[in-house]
Amino acid sequence: MKATQKIINDPVYGFITINHPLIFDIISHPYFQRLRRIHQMALAYLVYPGAVHTRLHHALGAYHLMCNAIAELKTKGVDITEEEEVAAKAAILLHDIGHGPFSHALENQLIQSVHHETISLALMQAMNRQLNGRLQMAIDIFTGNYHQPFLHQLISSQLDVDRMDYLTRDSFFTGVSEGVIGYDRIIKMLTVHDGQLMVEEKGIYSIEKFLVARRQMYWQVYLHKTVLSAEKMLVHILERVHFLIAAGNNSFRTGGVLDDFLYQPNSTLTDEILSRFCRLDDVDISFAIKKWAKHSDFNVNTLCNKLLNRQLLKIKLDAKPFTQTFIAEKIAEAAAHLNISKQDATNFVFTGEAVNTMYQPNDENIKILFKNGEVKDISAIDNPLIHQTISSPIKKFYICTLL
Amino acid sequence: MKATQKIINDPVYGFITINHPLIFDIISHPYFQRLRRIHQMALAYLVYPGAVHTRLHHALGAYHLMCNAIAELKTKGVDITEEEEVAAKAAILLHDIGHGPFSHALENQLIQSVHHETISLALMQAMNRQLNGRLQMAIDIFTGNYHQPFLHQLISSQLDVDRMDYLTRDSFFTGVSEGVIGYDRIIKMLTVHDGQLMVEEKGIYSIEKFLVARRQMYWQVYLHKTVLSAEKMLVHILERVHFLIAAGNNSFRTGGVLDDFLYQPNSTLTDEILSRFCRLDDVDISFAIKKWAKHSDFNVNTLCNKLLNRQLLKIKLDAKPFTQTFIAEKIAEAAAHLNISKQDATNFVFTGEAVNTMYQPNDENIKILFKNGEVKDISAIDNPLIHQTISSPIKKFYICTLL
Amino acid sequence: MKATQKIINDPVYGFITINHPLIFDIISHPYFQRLRRIHQMALAYLVYPGAVHTRLHHALGAYHLMCNAIAELKTKGVDITEEEEVAAKAAILLHDIGHGPFSHALENQLIQSVHHETISLALMQAMNRQLNGRLQMAIDIFTGNYHQPFLHQLISSQLDVDRMDYLTRDSFFTGVSEGVIGYDRIIKMLTVHDGQLMVEEKGIYSIEKFLVARRQMYWQVYLHKTVLSAEKMLVHILERVHFLIAAGNNSFRTGGVLDDFLYQPNSTLTDEILSRFCRLDDVDISFAIKKWAKHSDFNVNTLCNKLLNRQLLKIKLDAKPFTQTFIAEKIAEAAAHLNISKQDATNFVFTGEAVNTMYQPNDENIKILFKNGEVKDISAIDNPLIHQTISSPIKKFYICTLL
Amino acid sequence: MKATQKIINDPVYGFITINHPLIFDIISHPYFQRLRRIHQMALAYLVYPGAVHTRLHHALGAYHLMCNAIAELKTKGVDITEEEEVAAKAAILLHDIGHGPFSHALENQLIQSVHHETISLALMQAMNRQLNGRLQMAIDIFTGNYHQPFLHQLISSQLDVDRMDYLTRDSFFTGVSEGVIGYDRIIKMLTVHDGQLMVEEKGIYSIEKFLVARRQMYWQVYLHKTVLSAEKMLVHILERVHFLIAAGNNSFRTGGVLDDFLYQPNSTLTDEILSRFCRLDDVDISFAIKKWAKHSDFNVNTLCNKLLNRQLLKIKLDAKPFTQTFIAEKIAEAAAHLNISKQDATNFVFTGEAVNTMYQPNDENIKILFKNGEVKDISAIDNPLIHQTISSPIKKFYICTLL
Repeated sequence: MKATQKIINDPVYGFITINHPLIFDIISHPYFQRLRRIHQMALAYLVYPGAVHTRLHHALGAYHLMCNAIAELKTKGVDITEEEEVAAKAAILLHDIGHGPFSHALENQLIQSVHHETISLALMQAMNRQLNGRLQMAIDIFTGNYHQPFLHQLISSQLDVDRMDYLTRDSFFTGVSEGVIGYDRIIKMLTVHDGQLMVEEKGIYSIEKFLVARRQMYWQVYLHKTVLSAEKMLVHILERVHFLIAAGNNSFRTGGVLDDFLYQPNSTLTDEILSRFCRLDDVDISFAIKKWAKHSDFNVNTLCNKLLNRQLLKIKLDAKPFTQTFIAEKIAEAAAHLNISKQDATNFVFTGEAVNTMYQPNDENIKILFKNGEVKDISAIDNPLIHQTISSPIKKFYICTLL
Repeated sequence: MKATQKIINDPVYGFITINHPLIFDIISHPYFQRLRRIHQMALAYLVYPGAVHTRLHHALGAYHLMCNAIAELKTKGVDITEEEEVAAKAAILLHDIGHGPFSHALENQLIQSVHHETISLALMQAMNRQLNGRLQMAIDIFTGNYHQPFLHQLISSQLDVDRMDYLTRDSFFTGVSEGVIGYDRIIKMLTVHDGQLMVEEKGIYSIEKFLVARRQMYWQVYLHKTVLSAEKMLVHILERVHFLIAAGNNSFRTGGVLDDFLYQPNSTLTDEILSRFCRLDDVDISFAIKKWAKHSDFNVNTLCNKLLNRQLLKIKLDAKPFTQTFIAEKIAEAAAHLNISKQDATNFVFTGEAVNTMYQPNDENIKILFKNGEVKDISAIDNPLIHQTISSPIKKFYICTLL
Repeated sequence: MKATQKIINDPVYGFITINHPLIFDIISHPYFQRLRRIHQMALAYLVYPGAVHTRLHHALGAYHLMCNAIAELKTKGVDITEEEEVAAKAAILLHDIGHGPFSHALENQLIQSVHHETISLALMQAMNRQLNGRLQMAIDIFTGNYHQPFLHQLISSQLDVDRMDYLTRDSFFTGVSEGVIGYDRIIKMLTVHDGQLMVEEKGIYSIEKFLVARRQMYWQVYLHKTVLSAEKMLVHILERVHFLIAAGNNSFRTGGVLDDFLYQPNSTLTDEILSRFCRLDDVDISFAIKKWAKHSDFNVNTLCNKLLNRQLLKIKLDAKPFTQTFIAEKIAEAAAHLNISKQDATNFVFTGEAVNTMYQPNDENIKILFKNGEVKDISAIDNPLIHQTISSPIKKFYICTLL
Repeated sequence: MKATQKIINDPVYGFITINHPLIFDIISHPYFQRLRRIHQMALAYLVYPGAVHTRLHHALGAYHLMCNAIAELKTKGVDITEEEEVAAKAAILLHDIGHGPFSHALENQLIQSVHHETISLALMQAMNRQLNGRLQMAIDIFTGNYHQPFLHQLISSQLDVDRMDYLTRDSFFTGVSEGVIGYDRIIKMLTVHDGQLMVEEKGIYSIEKFLVARRQMYWQVYLHKTVLSAEKMLVHILERVHFLIAAGNNSFRTGGVLDDFLYQPNSTLTDEILSRFCRLDDVDISFAIKKWAKHSDFNVNTLCNKLLNRQLLKIKLDAKPFTQTFIAEKIAEAAAHLNISKQDATNFVFTGEAVNTMYQPNDENIKILFKNGEVKDISAIDNPLIHQTISSPIKKFYICTLL
């Protein structure tokens, strides 16, 4: 086993160490390597040029934090077997394996009504069969069916290593210092009580900082209005293409695996669809956009060219929905400017909502363990920064317009 | 002009400021936006997962250092007009505009015998026509025809802002701290003497550090043996495809602009070829690799699948060329293992050379200006780290093998 | 003037540039050099070993941010003359010139009832006389008597460069990442409207982050309970020494300038006292503690030895005051343990309060300038993190005990 | 033992963990706490204002790297018992315990002819007695008498954790990026072969970088001419004071423990002298300088005032010794300027040498272990950056002058 130790340079954490055969097998698997071809932050690089890192890099980073978290818990006397340790690391490596091209941005556009976590689970099960059941415990931890809840909570809760890594990594690659969290301090503060993941009392301020950083990354980066505009344009292009294909148009084939998803839309997850899905990545979409920039449909080629050359639709955010009058006005303007029908102009003027919640008091809570043994929710401590008002979701309405 | 000021987050330098209409026009131009779709470090991300940054990001970074360098020289009393300042900034933004897909890795594979700097110049001239001659001074500086040599030297010499940015940026994104240079100190030490770019005496150690860092990045990153293997595999795939096409095979079309380069090979730079070139980027090659992974030619599909799934050929480096006997042995092994002819097996066993020079004493030297007015080459100072031995090129021979 | 340009390495910002004769004269002045011998964070280094940076370093850092802020405002068209620019830089360099040994920890112990800002002003006036009035405008800006309020606000308000530097610097040297603020982004967002310093709308999240970071630094660092214990022990030693001297004890002389402050206590700021004050720094106090560790008074030598060897009193914080019963109990314990009278034991058991406010809505507010020209206080924007509850002061009660 | 785990914030490495009772006992010991009052870089802060970190901080940092190095070696299968592990950590914590005030700058000024390592050993032995022999193995490792040479080499060789920490830490606090080394990568490359500490083949470039960084730190920081001037002034003050005391002058007493060293000079290390030595630190010297700035001896008070107010002597470095004529000229100038005798003027004009060697091929070599089992000295590999020329010592001559 010594011979197999491998270190990977990571600009965020320094070095990531791989030292177990199962971890090697997962990382070498084509399903995992596919994540190299999926951007972690979809089109955010159009605003933050450094944000071109991949889902594979995030998975490795979350794995690294899992290694640290487990090592920390073990020094605190938490009982974790070697098998559980490897399973937890395997589960975090695979937690996003079901992400499709451009991640959240295109969710539900290619396989309708199937959440990416469902696909992740299906892919884990497929890999488990190939690996002779060596992933079973990892799957049980991932699905919350393992008898030690804290292992699942490390992977999926409001204070999991997934969030810790993506906030750290995304703020690193975007250069947005507002998103920096003290991940190493948070990990030093983790503990387990009654089988549940908790945070020691003196970690309260680090948790506050973590939640504030998350709020800031949402509004400053993930829901940045220019990023939103680009992602909505991409969605709109696919919707338009779906619409034309549904009307019988056969000219949107790209020559790649994307064609199957365009021309044989499906909402159940058969083995065949899953196997095609594993060949689908950002390259297919990017190639399609480049190809459709030469397509004869004016709406499609215009939107594709605009996206390619970063000539994005204008966008406005507001606390209230935009009025029908205002939207109609904007459509009329676009129609006049492009000399197209108002019907076609709706391809350049569209609305929607963006929502974010800083902390959800009723979902996989963050629990603080006090020295006297008391357990409190982070939102229930004295002088809280994370209070009720801030925990209710913030909804913003957007409109994308040509002019 | 105030209204047009824009800041861009850069994880490396913090913020990059854009505040001149010409700079805006260049950055907004589709030719420049194309650089978003070209990896700065080709396939190095297969070893360094963070190294997915783009040529566009590097161009912006080099522009930022140019802003700093010019500001520094001006505070030292060097006379630089506003027009010269903007021209130098425009020239550095455009210095790599002619890079094709996967940059150096594929140079000469798609347009034979045309160096990327030639294409850069041709594209600058095309843009200059579109921008009504506003790029003329930038072109003169780029080509070394402007009467102030130091402006050209800032863009292209052994101590230019291009190298300063790529070393800084590549070491940042790979996480290889050996490549960190003190770019800000070097810039503070720049000066101009007799129209030539020089370094003040107290900057000697920073220059040594810069040259050592460059040496280290070459052997540790740019010519890292695994990176070399991946890039040579990519080259080999294209060579094989070219060969089969030359033999009349018509089945390698991808449906994109790459087809023109595959099926109408050309070695002169006509306007038409240039215009096609501007639509070509990493996406086209990546898509081709994915498509050819399903192609019927065993050699092509095997190499493509290996590249896609990071199952790279083994590679060995040596100071001496490998013997014909050794190579033949490796070919025989591959043939036996894959059950193919020895002829076909040469697709999985091939050799070549990698060369790097730390400092070239006879080419765009780095000059040190002493307090007493004396000027010396960096390799001629007392107790030099950069001495003759180290300045001679280091050549290594490699062999890629299946087993 | 070119000959006088000087750069100073700063681990926080890279390089700090000095390029005006008046700035040189201030930095070279013995009053300013004295700040090298005053710790920026008093005894915080007993918890955070890196926090040994000096007031001089902080003054240089705040000066650097002032340079950046002024440069930024000028590019936005704010009219600032060269004289105003130099004056604002001089004022920020001198803003803390009146700090005594161990800064806030010992405030009022050596010169009673005189606030450090009063001493700063007196020292500025003394320097102004020596420099032939060249500091007059700096003094006017410092005291708020200059007709451009924004210059004063850059030096002293809830969003001044003083706070931006100390948060950045203190989090850097302590290693407490929770205190990191995006100072460069905040500075890019500054603007001037109706002569007042404001923040552009898109800077709201950076300001939130800044205020949260400040809150965190207070509770995690400045009022860290171990730091509090050490600082209160130091205060207590001096109080005990004052008390014994008042009772006629002549044995606490150290041989240095501190003796004047111990044996000739004074609460008005005569020229002579001011001149002595300029010779007083942390060295005098540290030497006294070392000397008094050998003094015959049991209380004094015990506390001094404990402080020297970091054997600090235990400390508890609570939202409510400690009861007299509890305090009496702790005193009895200490008396028994040390075999001293209860009266003497009060030297090892004492109480007090620590207070911090995140944002004070009624004092030198932070104003947001919206794109539509509207001006709002940061606490009055939509979905505020900085709300009323959080803006009320938080008071904690502490008790230091021997056991 | 769990209850005793403690983490210390370190801006350089993040968190340092203390988790063994012996390590606690060492850190809590007054001898170790004394290191808080000794600057790691003597007077370098007069040039690099951030360089005020302490010997205690460096000792903790070297301890942290030792923890990492041992953990790494253990994962590689090197057999290290828990007792050896704790002993190696104890030894590195104590390796500098014998440093006196202002470290190297004042070496031999206070206790003549006794090297600081001799004092370190004497202090370790004293602590060992107090700790009932629990330090015996640490002492054996420190003195090279333990049967596992690699443990000693981790503490004291040309690639020990002492050097790794001081280069990393000193470059961090000065802000001199030229000194940054890839300490984490070097540690990942460490291995043990035949009981000797070695570096794996792929670590060659990291070692080159390390040696180059060290060379740079010497000339740019440790032997920076202004730092040299300040430190030589300090030495000169003490020499002058010694001289006057030897001549019977009794007026240099400071009231502190320094007086014993001034008035009872000694060159053997008795228990009594050792016990006094443990009460001596930078505070005593700083206080003396402040006090002597008011002394009646013109030479002493002038030099003290100049040092206090950073009005340093001018300094020149040259590859050749300065001529007697030149020195005489400078003395005459100083005498005329200060209106003093030439004899007295020698207090303001003095000469000496500074020497540094990048790598010493014959002393505790750095050995590279190749994959084929071969072992080579770092200076003997192919294409070496660290060649013979660079390994010979570089000597520079300096002269400090008043004008």
